[in-house]
Amino acid sequence: MGGLGERSVTGENRESERAARLRLSRLAEPGDRQLGQLVRKFGAPTVVDRIGARDTSVPGVDNYLTRWDEPVADLDGLAAIDGRFIIPGDSEWPTQLDALDDTVPWGLFVRGCDLRLSVLRSVAIVGARAATQYGLHVASELASDLADRRWTVVSGGAYGIDAAAHRGALNCGGSTVAVLACGVDVSYPKGNASLFERIPTQGGCLVAELPPGTHPTKPRFLQRNRLIAGLTRATVVVEAADRSGALNTAAFCRQLGRQLLAVPGPVTSAMSAGCHRLLRDDDPARLVTAADEIVEEVGPIGSLAMLPMIVDSVRDGLDPTSLRVLEAVPSLVAGGLADIVRDAGVERRLVAGIILRLVAAGLVQQVGDDGFRLIHGAGDRPGSP
Amino acid sequence: MGGLGERSVTGENRESERAARLRLSRLAEPGDRQLGQLVRKFGAPTVVDRIGARDTSVPGVDNYLTRWDEPVADLDGLAAIDGRFIIPGDSEWPTQLDALDDTVPWGLFVRGCDLRLSVLRSVAIVGARAATQYGLHVASELASDLADRRWTVVSGGAYGIDAAAHRGALNCGGSTVAVLACGVDVSYPKGNASLFERIPTQGGCLVAELPPGTHPTKPRFLQRNRLIAGLTRATVVVEAADRSGALNTAAFCRQLGRQLLAVPGPVTSAMSAGCHRLLRDDDPARLVTAADEIVEEVGPIGSLAMLPMIVDSVRDGLDPTSLRVLEAVPSLVAGGLADIVRDAGVERRLVAGIILRLVAAGLVQQVGDDGFRLIHGAGDRPGSP
Repeated sequence: MGGLGERSVTGENRESERAARLRLSRLAEPGDRQLGQLVRKFGAPTVVDRIGARDTSVPGVDNYLTRWDEPVADLDGLAAIDGRFIIPGDSEWPTQLDALDDTVPWGLFVRGCDLRLSVLRSVAIVGARAATQYGLHVASELASDLADRRWTVVSGGAYGIDAAAHRGALNCGGSTVAVLACGVDVSYPKGNASLFERIPTQGGCLVAELPPGTHPTKPRFLQRNRLIAGLTRATVVVEAADRSGALNTAAFCRQLGRQLLAVPGPVTSAMSAGCHRLLRDDDPARLVTAADEIVEEVGPIGSLAMLPMIVDSVRDGLDPTSLRVLEAVPSLVAGGLADIVRDAGVERRLVAGIILRLVAAGLVQQVGDDGFRLIHGAGDRPGSP
Repeated sequence: MGGLGERSVTGENRESERAARLRLSRLAEPGDRQLGQLVRKFGAPTVVDRIGARDTSVPGVDNYLTRWDEPVADLDGLAAIDGRFIIPGDSEWPTQLDALDDTVPWGLFVRGCDLRLSVLRSVAIVGARAATQYGLHVASELASDLADRRWTVVSGGAYGIDAAAHRGALNCGGSTVAVLACGVDVSYPKGNASLFERIPTQGGCLVAELPPGTHPTKPRFLQRNRLIAGLTRATVVVEAADRSGALNTAAFCRQLGRQLLAVPGPVTSAMSAGCHRLLRDDDPARLVTAADEIVEEVGPIGSLAMLPMIVDSVRDGLDPTSLRVLEAVPSLVAGGLADIVRDAGVERRLVAGIILRLVAAGLVQQVGDDGFRLIHGAGDRPGSP
């Protein structure tokens, strides 16, 4: 049941939980620890009811009430842009966020591909907005090389390193996830609008804990960083000045016990000073210079070793179309895309993207340019023929 | 008695020891561990006698005999170029070399200032010959800043990083020591000839374990690196390709338990790949970006803390002129150079250089631009007025 802690919800209760969490997304700011404690203890519906009743057992209840009359998110409108609102316990929920404890998001607005599958094998690449040519080049190369190795690149959609990382992954046909500090329908920064259009349609997704239409603020940027660290196995800081926001992501990464990696640069460059500080800290980041070194750090957990534990839950999370595609992937000799399209009976334009996500999720292995086969054990349910 | 191990030598014995070691410098290659063991056990004169008698208890005695008839170093000629041959037990001998055990040099040929004082507070800066502009800039800056902080810069006199480090120190009025893989009268590489002329006359010295006139070979370069690591408190690798000789110095540094430091660079630069490998090793080098960070690593041992133990032996190692200068330095209120020149009764042109070495040796403290005073305890012999 993931982030719901002591409570378990099913059926009708589940929908009231979802409605309450949707409302909390509007009432409360991300990372509200006090409210998070109450939600873990009493469930979202009870907490929302108490706020509505101006129950003073909710600290700062009047603050929440100032937003009581604002409309909650328009889920129909969200669906129209391939968006949805997922909450802990949903099959698409990335359970690694449970490590955030009292600051688990109320829910996540997602546009594009399946979030959970996308981030199963994922690494965050973050860094300065005012990056140098060197930093942009390195971020793009690392992201491309990670994409080649079927790792999803997670970042924050900002100018500079973030955008270079997203683009590097996309340009290589890889999956990338942008975690936004605003609504998933808001293009911030505006200059990255075309990037935000590409991501959800090219095998990645946009994620936000703030409802559609919401604009970013400084605290929202900082809280967004906890999601970037929380969704991924490792955070790679590519360039960061001494007071860069990327160091905030690095701090969350350390708090969560995830692997913190940093790329060095010229000691004469102020934009590498933050990275060098991370590398000199008492609990130093690990120095990495190439994608292979990143995979080396996260690979042993990220690849086959984890499969037995999660294959079933990953399969359970697949939508019916993806499941049909998965079941059409041969298990011994690799099959081409055309064969899989035919055997699955699913539109060709959908199959390529689904296969990509199945590969990223560690269920399917690519063999050569156009061959795919099941990774051992991934496609076979107990008792299946 | 330092590197002499079990044996103690005085007076006449001492001169036969010196003559024997001078001969060994010609007969044997640097770092000859088998011969080193014999010398530690029986003393150099016995070992030389055995070689002369073609005693087969000396392994490979015939090899040494092939050089038996070659002339040993011309010490008179050496003296003419301000050179000398020092051996373990001499007051100028840098006792930190004792850590080399069986590969302690037979002796060292030195041109220029007092070697022991020069390397008391010293750091090695080493790196690639084919350095980039970035590497040259960083080496020069680090050396200048270390010189400003009264640290001696030790390097190998090669093109690239080595030369930049030597020049950086000299240009800042600092002390620098070049450890050569050839005779101290041989300019190798030729392009650094003017640098080799500057060093011994501007507060530094040239050092070699090979006799005058000897030319370098590959093994001599490698053995020279053990001296660079052995003379210093820390080795800083500025730029190094994946198979750079600087990594050999780094390996000696680790073996000796000295502090290994490395400067990062662009991950796109092949000339930084060796540094990054040192920083990623299981027993990683410490990343440094500035002289202050280097001093932070070596300073606690290198500054006042060591004085009580070594002040007496340092004083004992001073030549009479330096001693007169030291005794002219006031102990409470700092005095200017002019006052010290007058009180010492030593030529002005000599005093500045001597003062510099006394500062480097931790005996004298500079106060402002032209003030000098004794560091507490450094100038007062027990019982002196």
